[in-house]
Amino acid sequence: MNKKCVVLLSGGLDSSTCLAVAKDHGYDCYTLSIDYGQRHRAELRASKNIAEVLSDHPHKVVRINLTAIGGSALTDPDIEVPDYDAEAADIPVTYVPARNTIFLSTALAYAEVVGAEAIFIGVTAVDYSGYPDCRAEYIASFEHMANLATKAGVEGQRLKIITPLIDLNKAQIIELGHALGFDYSLTISCYNADQHGAACGQCDSCHYRREGFAQAGIADPTRYAS
Amino acid sequence: MNKKCVVLLSGGLDSSTCLAVAKDHGYDCYTLSIDYGQRHRAELRASKNIAEVLSDHPHKVVRINLTAIGGSALTDPDIEVPDYDAEAADIPVTYVPARNTIFLSTALAYAEVVGAEAIFIGVTAVDYSGYPDCRAEYIASFEHMANLATKAGVEGQRLKIITPLIDLNKAQIIELGHALGFDYSLTISCYNADQHGAACGQCDSCHYRREGFAQAGIADPTRYAS
Repeated sequence: MNKKCVVLLSGGLDSSTCLAVAKDHGYDCYTLSIDYGQRHRAELRASKNIAEVLSDHPHKVVRINLTAIGGSALTDPDIEVPDYDAEAADIPVTYVPARNTIFLSTALAYAEVVGAEAIFIGVTAVDYSGYPDCRAEYIASFEHMANLATKAGVEGQRLKIITPLIDLNKAQIIELGHALGFDYSLTISCYNADQHGAACGQCDSCHYRREGFAQAGIADPTRYAS
Repeated sequence: MNKKCVVLLSGGLDSSTCLAVAKDHGYDCYTLSIDYGQRHRAELRASKNIAEVLSDHPHKVVRINLTAIGGSALTDPDIEVPDYDAEAADIPVTYVPARNTIFLSTALAYAEVVGAEAIFIGVTAVDYSGYPDCRAEYIASFEHMANLATKAGVEGQRLKIITPLIDLNKAQIIELGHALGFDYSLTISCYNADQHGAACGQCDSCHYRREGFAQAGIADPTRYAS
């Protein structure tokens, strides 16, 4: 029987590559999306499609209404998603407070229920746009906490948080997935995708994705609205 | 301006005492309940009532459908909630995988949004029924992780996780809240409370509550169905 893992899947380019890597490493993958009221709902549909291709288990979606808390352009309708700005230095308004902590905590619960020994998350510290919860130091602290938090941990089953993309830039991530035969036309990264899943081409996320395909020298299969 | 805190409030005896302590310590309290599909929904109504008495801010409820994941008698309708059993030694089926981690993560997001410097959680290691995520070692590891996870943490604002009940047994908790003038008739602890909020009197939670009032020598204001 294959070792089991939970893969956090957003439907975007990074998490999908992460899933392809986990499968390539021989894991039996349980995919999990968090529906936290994000604007880019097209990503949730993409997640389901991607999971059907790469997982043998039903894709799980856990809804968490972070809109009740707000604090981010991605969950608060009163905050505008800005266009890409090369001069921007601060942590951007698209930052969602404690997002990866909430995602990993939910994945931890699912990992314990299915008996998984690892959680894969597609964070990258390279072009992390100033998000603190994408750094290796943060991930290590979460892993330490997770092994004190659960019945499985108390009983001696060690859980690993695996971040195969953490030292890769966007072009390298695309090269990695491409080498594994992953079809990026299934993914969507845009913060402002329209109802048909077409990307805006203007936001931070579109900027990094376009640049990544160009630098990797791989044809970009994204449908852009502009 | 008072220092701010987020208090995780379940509507039960412990978390309500925790809120009374936070207020007594001079904090401006933002209360948060997590609706995770638990059976004891009467607790959520109780939370709102308690928050109206002790907080100056609207009570927040974040819904997280952990029923999609299952794995506990509290979230999976196929698992029975057992009656109290003095011989039971293992972690019970009422254990919800990673519950406190998910609760604290959500509180962390709320703390960052309101600018709180502390999160209060009413865990107790004394009669914790074998839950691993009620131990001081776990709480310390969460606090360490939390200060690496957020924009506020990166910018140097240190967040504390405060557990005023961690070394207290049920009787001592009741004595503490009673001394602060808290009205326990507002709270409900039962895993199987009926639709009118009457407690079953048979489950683990009812057992510890009854015993606590008896040991404290304080009249138990709980309405029991049996």
